[in-house]
Amino acid sequence: MRSIRFLIAGTLAAFAISSAIGADDAALLRQAQQIFHPLPKDIGTGDFLVTEERVRLGRLLFFDPRMTLDGNVSCATCHQPALYGTDGLPTSIGVKQRPHARNAPTVLNAAMQFVIHWRGDRQSLEDQVEQALTSPISSGQPDERAVIERLRRIPGYAALFKTAFPIDVDPLTVKNIAKAIGSYERALVAPSRFDAYLAGDVNALSAAARAGLETFIRTGCAACHNGAGVGGGMYRKFGVVEDYWIATSSQAIDKGRADVTKNPADLYVFRVASLRNVAMTAPYFHDGSVATLPEAVRIMARVQLGAKLKDSEIDDMIAFLNSLTGDLPADFATAPILPPATITIPKS
Amino acid sequence: MRSIRFLIAGTLAAFAISSAIGADDAALLRQAQQIFHPLPKDIGTGDFLVTEERVRLGRLLFFDPRMTLDGNVSCATCHQPALYGTDGLPTSIGVKQRPHARNAPTVLNAAMQFVIHWRGDRQSLEDQVEQALTSPISSGQPDERAVIERLRRIPGYAALFKTAFPIDVDPLTVKNIAKAIGSYERALVAPSRFDAYLAGDVNALSAAARAGLETFIRTGCAACHNGAGVGGGMYRKFGVVEDYWIATSSQAIDKGRADVTKNPADLYVFRVASLRNVAMTAPYFHDGSVATLPEAVRIMARVQLGAKLKDSEIDDMIAFLNSLTGDLPADFATAPILPPATITIPKS
Repeated sequence: MRSIRFLIAGTLAAFAISSAIGADDAALLRQAQQIFHPLPKDIGTGDFLVTEERVRLGRLLFFDPRMTLDGNVSCATCHQPALYGTDGLPTSIGVKQRPHARNAPTVLNAAMQFVIHWRGDRQSLEDQVEQALTSPISSGQPDERAVIERLRRIPGYAALFKTAFPIDVDPLTVKNIAKAIGSYERALVAPSRFDAYLAGDVNALSAAARAGLETFIRTGCAACHNGAGVGGGMYRKFGVVEDYWIATSSQAIDKGRADVTKNPADLYVFRVASLRNVAMTAPYFHDGSVATLPEAVRIMARVQLGAKLKDSEIDDMIAFLNSLTGDLPADFATAPILPPATITIPKS
Repeated sequence: MRSIRFLIAGTLAAFAISSAIGADDAALLRQAQQIFHPLPKDIGTGDFLVTEERVRLGRLLFFDPRMTLDGNVSCATCHQPALYGTDGLPTSIGVKQRPHARNAPTVLNAAMQFVIHWRGDRQSLEDQVEQALTSPISSGQPDERAVIERLRRIPGYAALFKTAFPIDVDPLTVKNIAKAIGSYERALVAPSRFDAYLAGDVNALSAAARAGLETFIRTGCAACHNGAGVGGGMYRKFGVVEDYWIATSSQAIDKGRADVTKNPADLYVFRVASLRNVAMTAPYFHDGSVATLPEAVRIMARVQLGAKLKDSEIDDMIAFLNSLTGDLPADFATAPILPPATITIPKS
């Protein structure tokens, strides 16, 4: 009974759509709705909650450079609001000018990714934060105690940790810093015109963007770049048809996940990038070797799918990818005001 | 005739104030109004205009790290919104981890200062920006051409420069970058409760803050910290009564302006700091050697004025100084969205 009612409702809805917008557009929308999903409101899980108190604390910590060795690197150093949650660099620069190995992806919608980092060697955003806090490149701090000691010098934080983690006897821990920043990041969801489209508003995408979407699906891009993240949901070898480093003119060959798993089957395997906000997050690929989006699209079609796209197809694809640009969440665009410190950071 | 009318009006106004708020409060307000001035709406001059177009461009450039050598340092690196326009460090860290010589003052209300930098070796904000763009510490770029070349890789800027400097044949110059960023900074005015007080609203300051203001004037602080900036208007020797570096436990002795002018009379002379937003901009002094505001107040009273303040006087003074904290201007608190680059920054 229930399924019949659903079937009728679905048929009526499909009819309503197709009569209003044309059969091709309706078919494309239905196809897109099967491949992609709208972004959720936030990306909390049972293990990693999004609470107002954790988000408030996590937002402060995200922007606070005073936890790292010289006090001049924060999460926001590599994930700047003005650059849509990236640093605009091919590969990032950490404390004491130490080089990061790979390109910093945007922090927007980052929690949609099934693993964190290009090689998937972080299990969650919280795992990433926890490891970053004592990483020689991201932080430079020798151990967790040094990180905590820095926060103790900023009296305003004590009450915020207590409120965010009310059950903990001593809530000021690296695990809780990670949970708070993770909570904040899980709230950094940036829905775009594409979400309105997936919700049924065909005209949220221009005709060019709809053509680009059709090309995107037909060419095979959506085989990997799918789901709510339009990517970020699986591992794939970069360079299926030809070696990626030739197409990208990469300065070095990165073996990808094979260096993590020591499994030859993982050679040149990376996490598929989410294409959300891709138009605002140049340069592209794990090594930032490609500067522009049209070039990145051309290369991906070639090395992954053996497809040679026409210029007009690339134009349409760019129109589609532009529709994945969301508004910066207000909590990210606007800096929080950090509590003052009472002990100065010594020169290292 | 006119002066008589003014005299009557003035007497009536004074009577109105004193009858409503008590004679002591009225007298303190009148005294304060002679020593201090409310902040203007913006701080443009005939030479350095504040226009909507320049502010819009200057705001982007202020937050854009891609002009500097490695693309990882912008104006906002040392002048972070989250830290009230400072970096929270004793002394700042530039490109390639190169050390700045002195503490980064806040960019808020910075245009009120009669010269720029602690030693006054920059004539204006525009002069500061222009020199910073090719400074080995702030930027690392070898020359102006290298800076301009970077901006040419970001196509979105061309039209913005043309609009901001419509008469110029080739508006993309270092001078115009400086004018645009200067224009933006001249608009970063952060009025506070103290401005409401100076405008006649006695209750804009708490009783403690008014007591602190009275102590501030009586102790002699206002002899140097006066005007709209509550400082920033003159040079003075740091350490009149005793050597500053003993009181501050400074790691090194900075000769101040004498190193600029080679004049022995300028030994240990610095620009008097503006106290606007001082509660939010620790650590203190040219070398950031003092971590907390109560300690900074105690030291200043001692080394400049030979005064030993009681704890209660310092408490009141802090209440007064807290009243100098303005709201972050929205144009500063919220990051602009930078135009994407089409050529990637090479690794240096």
